[in-house]
Amino acid sequence: MIAQFVAIGRKETRTTPLEDALYARHGRLHYFIREILKRGRVPATHASKVADTMVAAELGGKSSEGICRLPEISQKLSTKLIDPLAEVETVLHDQAIAVLDANNGLGPIAAGSAMELSIQNAKQKGLGAVAVRHGNDFGVAGYYARMAIPEQMIGIVLANAPPTMLPPNGHEPMVGANPIAIAIPTTENAPPFILDMATTHLSRHRLMQFAEVERELPPGMAIDQGGEQTRDVEVAAAIEKWTALGAPGSAHKGFGLALAIDILCGVLSGGGFGRELASQATHQTPAGIGQFFLSLRVRSFTPWIKFRNRMQEFVNGFVKAGDLSDRSIYYPGEMGYAIEQDRRSHGIPISKPVGDELASLARSLDIQDAWEHVLEGRKNQ
Amino acid sequence: MIAQFVAIGRKETRTTPLEDALYARHGRLHYFIREILKRGRVPATHASKVADTMVAAELGGKSSEGICRLPEISQKLSTKLIDPLAEVETVLHDQAIAVLDANNGLGPIAAGSAMELSIQNAKQKGLGAVAVRHGNDFGVAGYYARMAIPEQMIGIVLANAPPTMLPPNGHEPMVGANPIAIAIPTTENAPPFILDMATTHLSRHRLMQFAEVERELPPGMAIDQGGEQTRDVEVAAAIEKWTALGAPGSAHKGFGLALAIDILCGVLSGGGFGRELASQATHQTPAGIGQFFLSLRVRSFTPWIKFRNRMQEFVNGFVKAGDLSDRSIYYPGEMGYAIEQDRRSHGIPISKPVGDELASLARSLDIQDAWEHVLEGRKNQ
Repeated sequence: MIAQFVAIGRKETRTTPLEDALYARHGRLHYFIREILKRGRVPATHASKVADTMVAAELGGKSSEGICRLPEISQKLSTKLIDPLAEVETVLHDQAIAVLDANNGLGPIAAGSAMELSIQNAKQKGLGAVAVRHGNDFGVAGYYARMAIPEQMIGIVLANAPPTMLPPNGHEPMVGANPIAIAIPTTENAPPFILDMATTHLSRHRLMQFAEVERELPPGMAIDQGGEQTRDVEVAAAIEKWTALGAPGSAHKGFGLALAIDILCGVLSGGGFGRELASQATHQTPAGIGQFFLSLRVRSFTPWIKFRNRMQEFVNGFVKAGDLSDRSIYYPGEMGYAIEQDRRSHGIPISKPVGDELASLARSLDIQDAWEHVLEGRKNQ
Repeated sequence: MIAQFVAIGRKETRTTPLEDALYARHGRLHYFIREILKRGRVPATHASKVADTMVAAELGGKSSEGICRLPEISQKLSTKLIDPLAEVETVLHDQAIAVLDANNGLGPIAAGSAMELSIQNAKQKGLGAVAVRHGNDFGVAGYYARMAIPEQMIGIVLANAPPTMLPPNGHEPMVGANPIAIAIPTTENAPPFILDMATTHLSRHRLMQFAEVERELPPGMAIDQGGEQTRDVEVAAAIEKWTALGAPGSAHKGFGLALAIDILCGVLSGGGFGRELASQATHQTPAGIGQFFLSLRVRSFTPWIKFRNRMQEFVNGFVKAGDLSDRSIYYPGEMGYAIEQDRRSHGIPISKPVGDELASLARSLDIQDAWEHVLEGRKNQ
């Protein structure tokens, strides 16, 4: 089955404009990211962890959370809007619960520690929860959720974010596009279940997808400066006033989910929530966002072998659901898995504008050789 | 603030057809429900607990989960499709986790025990999770989630259900309208946060609302027998092929959430999932559904007083969000709270068709006096 998805993934990969794209080897991108971060005074071990998350984002087809974020992160490190030397602080750790203060360090550092800790708690108590406050954007929520999978656990990750979501009947964003990720082990021979979704219709990821493929949004996903619906990708990305999942008829559901996530990540953590969160677009104050990590150990509920056999049946249900030769129904995680297999073999596509920006960033930091290293390793498509 | 919502709730209450409605006192309805269930051989203590959930559904405006379910439940009890004498069985209970087998008893009995147990676990470990298998429809998911609130906890409740949700690109339901409920304490002088939503656009509750008010669905929420979109409430209710939250452009999100809930409730519990679940509409086999209950103790994360003050700010944000004299933006739970205040004072509206059906049910069980007791206590509107 996997071979088939790789073929589908390959097709999906091709949604990036092929003619101008550079196809980079992921190992060389990892090196480039580390060098950029080290120039921002990030310690080598932290730089490596952040590079892990960005390379994983690129491999999984979520380029919006990958290397295109480097110019902004580099800028924030240089102006101390993100503290490169921050240490993650354990505010409390008791029974199955912990709270961490990210102390405005790089998002993936606190997030990785938090998910590891929630897994440790789940080993003891069957489940574990960790809340993080005063953090920064951690990239792909699913990256942390899937850390539970090798441990035979289910991982759930939530994050809040600066307001971009319109409430039903409202014209000003009140809450973020707050994502939810749920990772569930399946079987050895099938992709894991990885749901990773914003609670708005749009997200940076989907905007980038729409920009690459269609250049026009479906109706009802965003409004423009004047409060009118827009289908223009550029406008939606610049104005950041997005409708809640379910809009128009069920916007109260996406809005309600985003609010609940905001409270779990922003209030329960002792951090910030709602309109308190600085707009990342303006870059004037630390992001101050919070995250919530939950791990559930499968064998605390049901024998692992039974769970795995049942998940095999779950996977089989999807193979049956569509015609094998032309499947159109997937479970969450299948497409990302296929894209990852393809990109590991054929390289990670970097569009010309992103490539140009990264070359320029490398020049400005006087590490052109790191970018040259990426270029030298390019794959022929 | 609350007074204002009561006024709004009163207006909302009026969406039921006033001219023919009977306005019943909730205490008398409670008695009637108990009598019906006792005729089905349900022990008095269990009958009382089920009546609690149904009366709460009616008070909160979710009449679709209230007394209109009695004929079906009574029928299932008489044919042993629901076992009136089932005992809830503790399959395992270790650390913060428990698994219960409902043994095909009435949904609210196992669900109430499960939520209580998750609260007990959370008192010890900071959080607690309980999965239930081989259960029946438990009514309003939010009823159990809100049990966490007096304990200064956050409650999260999930349930799976027979397939009614269409996968993206699919024409046959693969998974249920699997609901998620999240209850969060606010402050003494504001309604608690209660999100309670199906992961489809539609649900029995929303179908009933549409039937009462507009008689036509918004586009894109359901398909008919032939696979074409329908806006006919009766057709959508009869055929039960509903689109996922987010359809059309983001249906993969509602679908992904429903699948994750299905796995948590149906696989992790050791119960049934997906198309295994008997169609409740055909009433041929036990429902076999599962539920998942999670409680998080606030003060295990952050001091209660700090949390409460922050939730006061959360509530204040909504008062500011709309004009006070004409608010149009609410947080989840506000409207239900307002409806409840109104119905406690002015009675629970029972539409003529439902009243007629209940009178007939009472006759068939030879307990006309219990229905007379409801009628005698009616409120004048």
